[in-house]
Amino acid sequence: MKEKLQGKVVCVALNDSQQLDNLTSIFEQAPYKAPPTEPVLYFKPHNTWNQDNRAIQWPGKQNALVVGASLAVIIGKTCCRVTQEEALDYVEGFALLHDFSLPETSYYRPDIKGKCLDNSLTLSAPVQVSDLNNYKDLELVTAVNGSAKRYFPLSRLSRGTEQLLEKISHIMTLDKGDIIAIGFAGERVELQPYDKITSTLGNALRLENIVSGGEQ
Amino acid sequence: MKEKLQGKVVCVALNDSQQLDNLTSIFEQAPYKAPPTEPVLYFKPHNTWNQDNRAIQWPGKQNALVVGASLAVIIGKTCCRVTQEEALDYVEGFALLHDFSLPETSYYRPDIKGKCLDNSLTLSAPVQVSDLNNYKDLELVTAVNGSAKRYFPLSRLSRGTEQLLEKISHIMTLDKGDIIAIGFAGERVELQPYDKITSTLGNALRLENIVSGGEQ
Repeated sequence: MKEKLQGKVVCVALNDSQQLDNLTSIFEQAPYKAPPTEPVLYFKPHNTWNQDNRAIQWPGKQNALVVGASLAVIIGKTCCRVTQEEALDYVEGFALLHDFSLPETSYYRPDIKGKCLDNSLTLSAPVQVSDLNNYKDLELVTAVNGSAKRYFPLSRLSRGTEQLLEKISHIMTLDKGDIIAIGFAGERVELQPYDKITSTLGNALRLENIVSGGEQ
Repeated sequence: MKEKLQGKVVCVALNDSQQLDNLTSIFEQAPYKAPPTEPVLYFKPHNTWNQDNRAIQWPGKQNALVVGASLAVIIGKTCCRVTQEEALDYVEGFALLHDFSLPETSYYRPDIKGKCLDNSLTLSAPVQVSDLNNYKDLELVTAVNGSAKRYFPLSRLSRGTEQLLEKISHIMTLDKGDIIAIGFAGERVELQPYDKITSTLGNALRLENIVSGGEQ
């Protein structure tokens, strides 16, 4: 990805229906007083862009790192205010995405600091949309050093690709090469220096990264 | 800017010391219980990038639009974990920046929807750093249809360029062409369709845009 710094990466938070159910009581308190009714989004800027099979540096100063895996939608052409019905016409392919970040300490402030670590966003080789029509029947599995740590059946996504593209393309125009991470398991996976993280979605997609050790 | 979609635009919120004083009682309540101790940042992604003398479309659906003006720092070379003392070595120039957005309704959720309107970020022609050493002695004035609506003495900036570059470059690496909007007057300026917005900083910098009318 480094060689073509053109697009934007938009990640969808809070799109795991099980996580939303667990957070109901928190959302009902002040200041929210209700669960979110629109997608909650965050960006991964260009300094975060990294690749499959590459390392992310252990953040020595904060001494903590977590990872989430998401199915990623790759936009194929300019996409502005589309409907759910036409949304997939704007998709070039699917990939897997790792979002490395500092553990989140609050739902209240935009977590720019935790989400914008250098090299903290990786993307697998993509597949065609037609190769992954059935993604909602599949389970996204994330393993650390060969041991499965998180199972995320994509049937648990509160909103799917079509709904998200309608919502997001009404907020901002998406361009060819932009990437949408459509949703992460509510609980991120805690990491240690030198961990190897492997995520797979059926036989279609695979992404692997390592945490390099030492101080930043 | 459209022809070189390379950089990222990082905006610093809540950097007006007068605004921070006014918000003290709000920040002391739950969930914050204290004013922010670190810069509060947000991004303007590429779909927002627009130019001096160009129009921003009136958001017909929401039927409201506000603008803030900020001094913008243009990064001249890769800037990673620099100190305040060396920060200005990484700056190529200064410009004026307009951030058009929907009025903010909450301090609690990242306001991606309101901040990411297409074409909602404009930048003036730049000047050299040495041409604007005295910016803290100047007042940023924003006028609508020729009538001054906001006076923002830059002495009111809670953190200056050097402090912000130290803080932000420890959060994420900044690259040549990246832009930091270092701070807006706490209160944004409300707009109507067909308004002409002109911001000036002394004799050094000037930026003008119009709001085009009609529905989106």
